[in-house]
Amino acid sequence: MIFTQDPNNELNDILNSNSYSSVFVLADDNTKKHCLPLLNEAVLQKISGTLTVNAGEITKNIDTCIYLWNELNKRGADRHSLLINLGGGMITDLGGFVASTYKRGIHFLNLPTTMLAMIDAAIGGKNGINLGHMKNQVGVVNQPDELIVFPGFLKTLDRTNYLSGYAEALKHGLIKSKDAFQKTLNFANPDLESEQFLGFLRENMAIKEEIVSIDPYEKADRKALNFGHTIGHALEAISHKTGKPMLHGNAVAWGTIAELFISHKQHSLDITYLNQTTELVTKYFPEPVFTSEDVNDLMAIMQQDKKNFGKKIRFTLLRAPGKYVIDQIVSEKLIHESFKHLKSLCQS
Amino acid sequence: MIFTQDPNNELNDILNSNSYSSVFVLADDNTKKHCLPLLNEAVLQKISGTLTVNAGEITKNIDTCIYLWNELNKRGADRHSLLINLGGGMITDLGGFVASTYKRGIHFLNLPTTMLAMIDAAIGGKNGINLGHMKNQVGVVNQPDELIVFPGFLKTLDRTNYLSGYAEALKHGLIKSKDAFQKTLNFANPDLESEQFLGFLRENMAIKEEIVSIDPYEKADRKALNFGHTIGHALEAISHKTGKPMLHGNAVAWGTIAELFISHKQHSLDITYLNQTTELVTKYFPEPVFTSEDVNDLMAIMQQDKKNFGKKIRFTLLRAPGKYVIDQIVSEKLIHESFKHLKSLCQS
Repeated sequence: MIFTQDPNNELNDILNSNSYSSVFVLADDNTKKHCLPLLNEAVLQKISGTLTVNAGEITKNIDTCIYLWNELNKRGADRHSLLINLGGGMITDLGGFVASTYKRGIHFLNLPTTMLAMIDAAIGGKNGINLGHMKNQVGVVNQPDELIVFPGFLKTLDRTNYLSGYAEALKHGLIKSKDAFQKTLNFANPDLESEQFLGFLRENMAIKEEIVSIDPYEKADRKALNFGHTIGHALEAISHKTGKPMLHGNAVAWGTIAELFISHKQHSLDITYLNQTTELVTKYFPEPVFTSEDVNDLMAIMQQDKKNFGKKIRFTLLRAPGKYVIDQIVSEKLIHESFKHLKSLCQS
Repeated sequence: MIFTQDPNNELNDILNSNSYSSVFVLADDNTKKHCLPLLNEAVLQKISGTLTVNAGEITKNIDTCIYLWNELNKRGADRHSLLINLGGGMITDLGGFVASTYKRGIHFLNLPTTMLAMIDAAIGGKNGINLGHMKNQVGVVNQPDELIVFPGFLKTLDRTNYLSGYAEALKHGLIKSKDAFQKTLNFANPDLESEQFLGFLRENMAIKEEIVSIDPYEKADRKALNFGHTIGHALEAISHKTGKPMLHGNAVAWGTIAELFISHKQHSLDITYLNQTTELVTKYFPEPVFTSEDVNDLMAIMQQDKKNFGKKIRFTLLRAPGKYVIDQIVSEKLIHESFKHLKSLCQS
């Protein structure tokens, strides 16, 4: 991973020192407009073409892959070409999958532009697309040739976007240690140019990097990263069905509350961590919208979770910050209680 | 790799000793009818379901993948499920890709039923699908959990099918050694139950196994396996356009003649090998159908070959049997000559 205050030098070096037959950028409307222009002429002139897709999670589907595979083909991309994924998690997930499967795999490089992508999606080689309403049902695990993190891109985004990534940072704190969690609480609304923030960003990314280097294929430890995501993914999926899509991190923030609640009930997690997280999440993150009638749908969505096996919903839970337990079965009753608990925290 | 005269014991052991959450078979109409019944009750009762697709290369496309991903999802396949690919190269290519990408990868096992799949397609972890008329444009390299070769399946097939795989065996002989090539010449029309044939099959598969174990990602030596395929793939692709599809191996057999011709002209390959191969191929393999007007289309198809880089068509060629040279550029003039040479060997 390269953490840099100027991605141009790094990119220039990479493009000069590798003999790529061609170089393509994958961007969405937003990153094409706001991020691509931050690259300098020396870099831009080495780029053979830009592939642009619509922004938004809904674009992360098989039709977009077909479009991109064909487009790469038309533009003469071969096995020695490079794809630069310039965008948030949607772009790094989509572009990583397209590059990993085009002609059985070409070079790709992640240049994340959002907090979520920097801290989470662009690290660790998981990529993929959604299949209908099912998140990331199709994909592979394949590390990018390089990950270049340029925090300057964060200035192109609004608070909502920052918070969506910050939810994953909070999760990283919880699975790492009490200290890491307490530190994370200070950065819900940071000065993006401060040394403190840059230090925090680097440390927090390192939490994910360490876990995925130990367990790239999610046999055990990598499952820690799923904390907050079993319920988070269900909230996110149902919000897409109702036509009021939640940002991924927003769903994860509320999923984290629910799974801290379950951890408290089932594994005696100290209630302090639930309370501190609840205070922060209810202050900063928009509420999930679901009714008691939706709970059966939420359960059905969780039944489809990739992390399950043996037809049981599997959770990662916490005994304490840093003390995670994986593959936990939770009773339907307790899952229902956790949804009621979320509901009790909502105004609407 | 398991080479066996009875796949039931082996399959039973594998299904008993692994705790798969569910087991699915991918078959086509033909293998469902003729091969699946060769498995015994003990094996069949451990299978959760059979996914059936139409036989034929045309099925190897993204729409079939979407159908299969959705079907696996509907039937509750999770990350601990196993997919058994029961079929020829189309099925092992398709099933390998679907299994490698469903939920970012589930277990899969190849149980090849044709000569082509046993000797080539099911070995080495390459999988993928066609994109429009472009062969194997989308896929990954991912080894199956196991490869079980049961030569008894060959008895379910006709001579045409045998020959399609035999063309790859011929190529293996050519890239291995003079002796291996001479031996291969004896098995164009073998007794499938003879010890000699079983020995030949095993030795010939070992040629491919050895190369892919040295170079799984085709950085260098694995390219030897592409001998005959640059022109072979083009002949195959154009035959699909004209509505008279050639079997893969049939196209490769004629592609092998063309590339032996080029090897003779460009790398002084002894003409004996071209002559011996020509005699065998013209005797056993149906002629390719193309006109001099098709040559530009054939060139255009070769321009799209995955093996190319730097916008040049790249060939694997031979100085002698066992002495291959990779990434060779050939003049357009010599490629045209090789097509003329093929034409001169055809009756029509």
